[in-house]
Amino acid sequence: MGVRASISRYLIPAIAGILACMASALAQTDPLPSWNDTAPKKAIVAFVDKVTAENTPDFVPESERIAVFDNDGTLWVEHPMYTQLTFALDRVKTLAPENPEWKDQQPFKAVLEGDMQALAAAGEKGLVDIITTTHAGMTVDEFQTIVTDWLEKARHPRFGRPYTELVYQPMLELLAYLRANGFKTFIVSGGGVEFMRPWTEEVYGVPPEQVVGSSIKTEFIMRDGIPTLHRLPEVNFIDDKAGKPVGINAAIGRRPIAAFGNSDGDLQMLQWTTLGGTSPRFGLIVHHTDAEREYAYDRQTEFGRLDEALDIAPINGWTVVDMKADWKAIFPAK
Amino acid sequence: MGVRASISRYLIPAIAGILACMASALAQTDPLPSWNDTAPKKAIVAFVDKVTAENTPDFVPESERIAVFDNDGTLWVEHPMYTQLTFALDRVKTLAPENPEWKDQQPFKAVLEGDMQALAAAGEKGLVDIITTTHAGMTVDEFQTIVTDWLEKARHPRFGRPYTELVYQPMLELLAYLRANGFKTFIVSGGGVEFMRPWTEEVYGVPPEQVVGSSIKTEFIMRDGIPTLHRLPEVNFIDDKAGKPVGINAAIGRRPIAAFGNSDGDLQMLQWTTLGGTSPRFGLIVHHTDAEREYAYDRQTEFGRLDEALDIAPINGWTVVDMKADWKAIFPAK
Repeated sequence: MGVRASISRYLIPAIAGILACMASALAQTDPLPSWNDTAPKKAIVAFVDKVTAENTPDFVPESERIAVFDNDGTLWVEHPMYTQLTFALDRVKTLAPENPEWKDQQPFKAVLEGDMQALAAAGEKGLVDIITTTHAGMTVDEFQTIVTDWLEKARHPRFGRPYTELVYQPMLELLAYLRANGFKTFIVSGGGVEFMRPWTEEVYGVPPEQVVGSSIKTEFIMRDGIPTLHRLPEVNFIDDKAGKPVGINAAIGRRPIAAFGNSDGDLQMLQWTTLGGTSPRFGLIVHHTDAEREYAYDRQTEFGRLDEALDIAPINGWTVVDMKADWKAIFPAK
Repeated sequence: MGVRASISRYLIPAIAGILACMASALAQTDPLPSWNDTAPKKAIVAFVDKVTAENTPDFVPESERIAVFDNDGTLWVEHPMYTQLTFALDRVKTLAPENPEWKDQQPFKAVLEGDMQALAAAGEKGLVDIITTTHAGMTVDEFQTIVTDWLEKARHPRFGRPYTELVYQPMLELLAYLRANGFKTFIVSGGGVEFMRPWTEEVYGVPPEQVVGSSIKTEFIMRDGIPTLHRLPEVNFIDDKAGKPVGINAAIGRRPIAAFGNSDGDLQMLQWTTLGGTSPRFGLIVHHTDAEREYAYDRQTEFGRLDEALDIAPINGWTVVDMKADWKAIFPAK
């Protein structure tokens, strides 16, 4: 066998094998495989490299590596409407037989008749009525079971998958990447904290004690020697817009160094995180630009409106993710 | 040299050395060296052994090993009065020159004149006035500096040491022991959450995000492009008595498996933690019985009254620590 034959028969396969092996090693070490190698991924990696570089002025100790994530539209799908609103409307239908008066009483009548125009006309008060009615009147343990049962059965109207599968694969990778670099990841959502806690640990790796959200009041009662916490039909806290920094301070007690959102509801959280601090900070907005794989919306939508924050982002140096261009995948593979 | 001489000259010292070494090794491995080998220590160790024993029915996964600690009287001294009250009274004196009207206005007049009877007569409303006046009107960052500066200078009237040194050495060991066994340790105090957070990480190893407490309202404001959180003179939440389970649920979102308190203010937290759960639970009450080394008080005191919880403890199987009998040391050595 000549040298040429040797090369083609032995050396080329060997080199190919080595290259394949290197490619595989590289793929394995890429912590963000669902992100294209565009500006957002580069900005994230550069920030993490910076704050974890010991003996440099930008180094941030682990205890201060707090990252906060909005949920609806940032970690999971929020169209055609917030998942928790779908849950609440389903609850109205479930509870209707026990509440026959609802068929003549707004906003419940609108829900039962599927009259979205009348529901919209009921405004914020109508919405609060629906939430407090459907989310209160049981113990916190009972509510957890109700949420878990609903999420098991409910399917998204367009994608036909459970809502907990309609989470953004690139964001799951980002959460894991930050934690692998010593960050503590928190959810800071306008959604109800007790609607999220039953599943965030399994789905996002975020334990209940790192979930901040809106809440209704609860009351402690000893009932036949058993301690119970009852959910009351009264709003306690709205963790949205200027409420987000308030919620962050109340629950976490120190300022995050990284914040991830997708709407004007996250504007103040992004400001609180990124402006006026001394250590490096990072702000990121997920811009829904992919009508084909998910949805495309920003300034004109009812759910997750992104208007002011989109204008301010470049001024404050916030990274804007173009879902269509920057993400290889949207949801985890089935 | 005969055999006998050899034994006494070489072997006995060698054996003594080995024994000393073993004793030292044993002492080093005792995670609770300031606890006497009495019932409370045995109960704590038995509980921790039980919930960490894999492949047994009592095993509790790490994520569910939540332990909650009261602060005043459980982790640090609360006599002759709550440290935060001392802080508030000092703040009244500091702010008096800017508020000349206080010298004729209760409850401030009482504070400035050291008239504790008039102060007591002002009741809970007077106390809320003092707290909201002295704890509001600044940003959260400014308040943190005020607390830190005060704690550096203030000295306990009897022990002459900084308050952050008047923490209970056996409880510091207990916190560390639980964490070494996969527990997440939280403070759940009636005291102000922002009065504790500036120092709990350094003193107790408990980071700000694991401190739950009472709070006043805050407001987010963009001021000259700088995001600020302002403290408002309005009570937000009282984390005491039946408020403790509410605070635990709001901040942690799952039920603790171990609770440590010292007063009736901890009764509902102990009930919520220990009664009605399926996994093993542990409740402990620190009973202040040592007038010589610290203080002796229970049913008759204004600060940290222990009455109902002391009666209920044996019924619910809660461990009661007799400080005098069960603790070798009270405070860390100077």
